[in-house]
Parts: sequence; structure tokens; C-alpha cells
Amino acid sequence: MTPRELWERYKGLLCDDPGLGVRLDLSRAGLGDEALAQREVAAQAALDAMAALEGGAIANPDENRMVGHYWLRAAGMAPTPEIAGAIRDTQARVFDFASRVHDGRVRPPSAERFRRVLVVGIGGSALGPQLLADALGGPGDRLSPHFLDNTDPDGIDRGLGALGEGLGETLVVVISKSGGTAETRNGLVEAAAAYRARGLDFGAHAVAITREGSVLDRQAREQGFLARLPMWDWVGGRTSVTSAVGLLPAALQGIDVGALLAGAAAMDEATRRRETRRNPAALLALAWHALGEGRGSKAMVVLPYKDRLLLFSRYLQQLVMESIGKERDLAGRVVHQGLTVYGNKGSTDQHAFVQQLRDGTPDFFVTFVRVLRDREGASLEVEPGATSGDFLDGFLLGTRRALFESGRPSVTITIGDLTPRSLGMLIALYERTVGLYASLIGINAYHQPGVEAGKKAAASILELQRRVVAALLERGVAGGTCEELARATGAPDEAETVFHLLERLAANPDRGVAKRPGPSPWEAVYSAR
Amino acid sequence: MTPRELWERYKGLLCDDPGLGVRLDLSRAGLGDEALAQREVAAQAALDAMAALEGGAIANPDENRMVGHYWLRAAGMAPTPEIAGAIRDTQARVFDFASRVHDGRVRPPSAERFRRVLVVGIGGSALGPQLLADALGGPGDRLSPHFLDNTDPDGIDRGLGALGEGLGETLVVVISKSGGTAETRNGLVEAAAAYRARGLDFGAHAVAITREGSVLDRQAREQGFLARLPMWDWVGGRTSVTSAVGLLPAALQGIDVGALLAGAAAMDEATRRRETRRNPAALLALAWHALGEGRGSKAMVVLPYKDRLLLFSRYLQQLVMESIGKERDLAGRVVHQGLTVYGNKGSTDQHAFVQQLRDGTPDFFVTFVRVLRDREGASLEVEPGATSGDFLDGFLLGTRRALFESGRPSVTITIGDLTPRSLGMLIALYERTVGLYASLIGINAYHQPGVEAGKKAAASILELQRRVVAALLERGVAGGTCEELARATGAPDEAETVFHLLERLAANPDRGVAKRPGPSPWEAVYSAR
Repeated sequence: MTPRELWERYKGLLCDDPGLGVRLDLSRAGLGDEALAQREVAAQAALDAMAALEGGAIANPDENRMVGHYWLRAAGMAPTPEIAGAIRDTQARVFDFASRVHDGRVRPPSAERFRRVLVVGIGGSALGPQLLADALGGPGDRLSPHFLDNTDPDGIDRGLGALGEGLGETLVVVISKSGGTAETRNGLVEAAAAYRARGLDFGAHAVAITREGSVLDRQAREQGFLARLPMWDWVGGRTSVTSAVGLLPAALQGIDVGALLAGAAAMDEATRRRETRRNPAALLALAWHALGEGRGSKAMVVLPYKDRLLLFSRYLQQLVMESIGKERDLAGRVVHQGLTVYGNKGSTDQHAFVQQLRDGTPDFFVTFVRVLRDREGASLEVEPGATSGDFLDGFLLGTRRALFESGRPSVTITIGDLTPRSLGMLIALYERTVGLYASLIGINAYHQPGVEAGKKAAASILELQRRVVAALLERGVAGGTCEELARATGAPDEAETVFHLLERLAANPDRGVAKRPGPSPWEAVYSAR
Repeated sequence: MTPRELWERYKGLLCDDPGLGVRLDLSRAGLGDEALAQREVAAQAALDAMAALEGGAIANPDENRMVGHYWLRAAGMAPTPEIAGAIRDTQARVFDFASRVHDGRVRPPSAERFRRVLVVGIGGSALGPQLLADALGGPGDRLSPHFLDNTDPDGIDRGLGALGEGLGETLVVVISKSGGTAETRNGLVEAAAAYRARGLDFGAHAVAITREGSVLDRQAREQGFLARLPMWDWVGGRTSVTSAVGLLPAALQGIDVGALLAGAAAMDEATRRRETRRNPAALLALAWHALGEGRGSKAMVVLPYKDRLLLFSRYLQQLVMESIGKERDLAGRVVHQGLTVYGNKGSTDQHAFVQQLRDGTPDFFVTFVRVLRDREGASLEVEPGATSGDFLDGFLLGTRRALFESGRPSVTITIGDLTPRSLGMLIALYERTVGLYASLIGINAYHQPGVEAGKKAAASILELQRRVVAALLERGVAGGTCEELARATGAPDEAETVFHLLERLAANPDRGVAKRPGPSPWEAVYSAR
């Protein structure tokens, strides 16, 4: 293709919407008119399914749930007045609570103001808030954001340690829909213990975002949390960033969440268009389908050329892979679908894995995210006539061109500036794209059976550990090898797991397990200390 | 396979070294005795090539260079006394400089002590130091670590803004082998301007790590930098973490870099063993080869269950993909090799993309990194008999089991505790594995032609921008459309790139380009302001 033909192709395929300020360029995605025409019927069916979803259909049949994250940006679309009212009421409470924290009407017992917010959550209950905090925060933050997003003891110590003497000025936002997610529950227990250890009343520093009536909700009630905000079963964790989950931490930080919601709402409108060519989510979903042959045969490498969007790649990794990575299609057939997503940021990654993208296995397509505005204020020249931003954009355009020339496809999304509004648009664009793509390949994008299975597998390991510890206590100082202890717990087949459990317990002096090494690792003798 | 057979397989394949405290478990990697036996000749040839490399062979033929990162941990192995002396001398200077900074003998002109270190670098010159800083740093840091790792103007503003009033107490370490890497040069120019703007002498706050005689080296000399430390052409960026590149920032931070080097040296010794079964790097390289059929057909998902190792996944992504992602093999044949790496941390990722790993496309293998020691100090019980760490490890073991049961392979690396020594071992293990694997597939792991090509592509874009701006100035207020301006610059075929450049210039008010919208995006008229 000559440069002029490519320019015509660019113009012909560009999905531009001056009202949105978002441009989607598929000219390097290997998606021609035929590929679009071939998929038009499927695209219309996907848009039908999406309209039904927005209308309140049970779009998540496995869990018998509606899927309502779009209503969060347009309460009037909700299928019942109760849901519309709950959305409006919750948003009003988020705004109100944040403003009362900011002006000191809501304050900690032992300090004048809350100055930090600690979010305790995992998965969708952490990555959405983290994305907003990192992409939109800055020196003017009203409260500085902190996170506990795992059940790693050392990580928890680090997170709480970073707050140090500021714990009494820290507002804790605990986020868990069910209230039963172990990592979040553990973070909550450890955080509460840290408050108690300093003589602080945890409840007077805490907010819960959870399903009404959950364990966490009850605890919040009993311990007099400052507020309780709802999570609904029609909002999934990975699409909860425009619910209280994302809005409250961001509003506390001082981010204009109204603009975020407005941006998402504007993109929602644009991505409801039935005309595929004018619907950026439909186009993007079709591009994914064409590029990956409907089975994710190419990974999506996300390269935002903007440091603030570093977490956007990881956010999309969660949104896409948790939604699309499914064993079965909606008809119950085993399909093992997936769409792998990875990436960090440009041009940094050009000095890392982009070597492989340029020269190695052609098993991917790139999504460039381009931001036209460089910075607040003026730039200095780093060499005559060129600024740091000129280089950043030059690397993007150069890499896009070089990849195309060597047959590596890419998609480019351009926004004018990174703001709450434009980030809201990007989030909404990908939420919709994932939903439409799921329809194209016939899967349920809104459940996560593998995550549930992972929880169960861990629970059985913990149960085995309890039995091993009991057997160890019973044997006293005599102790036993892992194989002996496996037999003693009535689980002779579990010798290997018993070995792993004992090795770890023995490595932690507070756990009461002593170890005498043997001639081989598995002949060590463990006993109660 | 029954649980007992699996336990026997675990014992039979385990590569354990009590002296190292690192265990490599390949029992779930689908690597049996036959797979090892089949590859034994190739493994021995790879070990031969590695021995030649360590002996000073030109192991990077395209660049006609030796590859000497292993000498950094065993100067006595260096092929010449000059190189051995340079290594020892540089390490001594790193230790000495850090200690003089710590005790205030090296101090900034306008403050009592340096309290922060700002590393300016990209790729290997940033990710290694970042990994050490994040994995090993803590509240006791002597200097707090900061980074500029890109040419994003807003990112630079953020990075420098975070230092704020502390700039005068900040030691800047600029890292660039050639001195000509644009991102690093730009970061340096912007940082130096920030010092000047506060009336501070930049050179009195700066250290350069670069090749002797480079542009950066000359600048450091002229501006009286506090120190200049060498980078050698026989150390690549992605394997430079045990050179001054990684050691100086870490030593300044207060990390025990001696222990890091000792750990790497110990792993180097273990991975020189000719007996494949006792050499963890050889085993790991063979596992990669068997799992990916010698062509990287499965991605490597890195899941360290330890928050501090979050960057380890990204570090390995750079190390592996930049080394293995190559167009040609050593014989010059087009092979398009690669080994895709991604991941963040467990169990957080279990609430994100692990859904796809469990249920979706089986196009990957997992590398679990397990750390036995939970935390400093004792743990509280988050529920009867269970700690946060029990859950973390339970999620790891449960996920490992569940993936295996559904035919998804994994490798597990276990260390006792995360320390400078054990991190040094992990780094050395993967450096060696990458080198051996490259031999198995017959490629040069030590060059990065695609990165160079990317720099050239960007340079031509910047050159075009200069011509466009010149044409724009010539036309004055009349201006022109992107197509007119492309013609005016004598590059009518470049209308699309000219369009992209003008759009961005117009979005930045300080760049002197005004835009009048047209009926379509490409009919806008641009003029000099």
C-alpha cells in the first residue's frame, strides 16, 4: 500500500467525534471494508444484545443477574425507579460525604482533618480506584491515596507503615461486594488491629462499600463506621469504577468525579449508535475479532504514551481477560476463549519488550494511546526546535509506522488531554467494547467462575493446614516427617502439600513449628516448638 | 497421575540447594525424564557456549562485543586484569561514594545532607534500579528513591514536582551507556533546568554512570559532577543491575549491595554446573524449551506472591523479551523468535486475569515465585488458626494445583525470604536461564536491533516536524491544511504524519500553532500563531 493509499484508508476508517474528542484509528489494524461488511450482521446482533442488557435483561445468566454499569452514568435508563433512585441517591451521598470530609464536618476523633484515604480492596475493588488515583491525582490532592490490595503480610506492613503516625488522620474505605473476599477481610482485620494498637477507634475512621446485609455491612453497622455505601449485584467488580467503588476514593482525593461520569455517559451515547462505522466500541470489537480470528489468537499489547496511564494497561488486562477468558460459550460448549492483554507505557517499553514486538513472534497487536496535550505550562527545548513531548510523540508515531511496515497491526486511540472526562470516556469505551466482543464470540462476559474456583482451592489448602497443625500438636516434640504427618491427618495422598505447608510454617518463627533437617528436604522432621 | 506419583515426580525433579536456599520445582511443568534426556546434548552445548562467553568470547557477534555481566560478581573470572581491576575499582568507588553521601562528606551546597536520590534512565538503566528500590527498600532508607524513566513531559513534571522543595537535597544519578539515549538526555535537560530555576548548581548534585568518553561523560566533566562511574560495552542495559547502574542507587538507598552481589555470585556458581539436573538455570531453560516447543508458543506468566516483587514480573519481561525476541538466528535465518512475559503479583492477579488462565486459552505457563517468610515479626490471626500469610500461600498452592489439574503447566521457585541475597540469586538465575535458552534456540541474546531501529524511526518523524514547522512559519497567518503543508515541505506522501504532528502542536498552546477546524479533521487549517 502506498503512503497515499494509506492516508485515504486512514481518512476512510477514522472514527472521529469532535464532541467526544476521542479518535479511533484502525488504518493499521488490517481491518478493511470487507472485514467490516462480513461482520455487520454479527455486529448488529451484538448491539441488540447490548440494548437488551441496558434494558435490564438477565445478561449474566449463570449468576441470574442484570448487568447495569451503564445505568451508573444514566440513571434514567435503569429498568426500575428503585434502581434509578438508588444510583442517584448513592452519587449524592458520595459527593456529600466527600465534601463533608474536605471541610472537616466529618473528621477523625483525634485530629482536625482526614488527610489520607486508605482503600482496602482487591481486583475490581482496587484497580479501578488505583487507576483513577494515579491517572488523575497530583500535588493538589485533598486526601492522599493509599491502598491495601492483597493478603501479603509484608505488603500490609508496608502499606500501614507508610501511613505511620498519620493513621489517626487516615480514612479507611473497605470495598468488598460480598464482604467475604478473604484478601480484603484480612486487610481490614490487620488495619483495624493497627488502629487499636494506637488506641484509635477503627469504626470512627472507616467507611464500607458493600452489598446491603453482607458480613461487612453488619460489621460496619455494629462498629459505627462513618458511612456505608452500596454495591449492587448488577455491577461487577471489574466494571465498578463508576459506582461508589471508584467514585468515593476519587472524590475524597479531590478528583472531579462528575466530569468522569459525564465523560463515561458521553461515550456510552456514542457507543449505542447502530451505525457501526460511527460507533467506536463496535469498531474496536470488530477489530479485535478480525485481528484475533474470533479466538484471541493475537495478544493485545497496550501502550499508552503517558506516564499517568501506566495502570491503564493493567486495568484493561483485568477488564478484558476476566471478562473474555472463559471455558464455555453461552450455549455451554467448551471453547476456551481468551484475549491476552499486557503492556506498561511508551516510550519506556520501547527499551524493553518492544524489541520482541518489532522483530520477534508476530502474535500480537498493539493499542497505542496517544495524548495530544503534553503538560501544564510551556516546554523547554531539549535540543533546537524539539521538546521532550516531541520525542515522546515521535517514538509513538515511529513505532506505529515501523510495526505496520513489518506486518504488525496496531490500533491508535487519540485523546486531546488526559482529564477526568477523557478517562471516563476511555473506560466506557472499553467496557462497551468488551461487552460487544463477548457477544460476537458468544460468551458471558459478566461472570468469573474461575475466580470462585480459586477461592475454593485455597480454602481446602487452609483446611489441610489446620489438620496438619493439630496433628503436630498432638505429637508434641517427637513430631514427624511430612509423610508421617500426612498419614496422621488422614490424608496420606497429600504428602506434598503437607510438605509445602510445613516448610512455610517452619520458616516463620511465630508459627510454633520447629524443623530438624534430614538427608533430603522431604526427610526433615517437624515438631511443635 | 495419582497424587503419590506426583509426589514422587516432585521429589525426583526438585532442584534443591540448601546452600542457596532456592528451590526449583518443575513437577508441574510437563517436563519428564525423556524431555530432559532428549535435550541433554543441546544443554551441554549451551553450557559450552556459556563457558566460552564467561571466558571472554565475542558472545554478541553483531556488535562484536564480549558479554561480561557474570564477571561483575566474580572479577577474578574476567578475561583480562584490566577488566578485573575496573570491576573491583568501580565497586569500591560505589561503596565509598555511598558511604561518603551517608555520613555527609559528600553533601549538597545548600543543605546538610542528601536525602533523596533521583535516577534518570530508561530500559535497563531504570528497571533494574527500580526493582531493587521497590523490592528491598523500606522505612529505613538512607536516601529515598525517585525515578525519571521516560520522556513524558507531564511525567517529568510529576517526578520533579514530587521532589518539590527537596530538590536541593536530591542527588541525581544519570544513567546512559551511550549518553545519547534521547529519553534520558531529555530527563537530564529538564532536571538540570529545574535546579537552575531554583538557583542550584546542577553539577554539584549530579553523578553520571556512562561509557567513558560519551557525551554524558564529557558533560559530567565540564559541569563538575560529583562523580563519574563507568558503563562498559560488555555489559548490556538489561543485565546491568549488578554493575554501578544498579549498585549505586541501591547503595545510596542503604540496601546491602554486597549481599546482592554475593547472592548473584552464589547462583552463578550453581548455574555453571555441567550436571543439568543440579543446575537450576539449565533446568529452567530446558523447561522453557519444552513448554514453548522451542519457539515461545506459550507465554510465561510471572506471579510472585509477594507485593515487593511486583516489579520482578516487569523486570523479567524486559530481560526475556528484549533478549529472546529476535528476527534472525545466529546463522542469519529469519526465525521470529520470542517468549512473551507478563504478570504482576499474586494473589491480586487472581482477581483479574487468572480467570483467563484457569478457564481460557491454554497458551501460557505460569512461574510462581513463593517466599516462605511472611513478614518481620509475628502475625495476628485473621480467623481462628489462620494468618494473612496462610491465605496468601493457600492461594498460591491452590492455584498451582488447579492449573495443573486443568492441564495448565507451571514452574515454582521458592525462596526462604526476600533479601538482597535472595534477590541477587533470582536475578542471576534468570540472566543465566535467558543465556542458555538463547543457545538452545540459536539466537544472539545480547543485542537489540529493534530498539535501534525504533530510535531511527522517531528521528525521521522529528526531522519531518522541523520541516513542517519551518513551512508553517514561512506561510505565516495564511497557513494551510495538512496536505498543503506536506507538499510545502516537499513530502506530499507524508500528509498523514504531517496531520498527526500538526494536531499535536496545535493542542499545545506554547508551540505557536493555531488551528481553524474544517468540515473534516483533515481539512483543518493550521497557521503560525
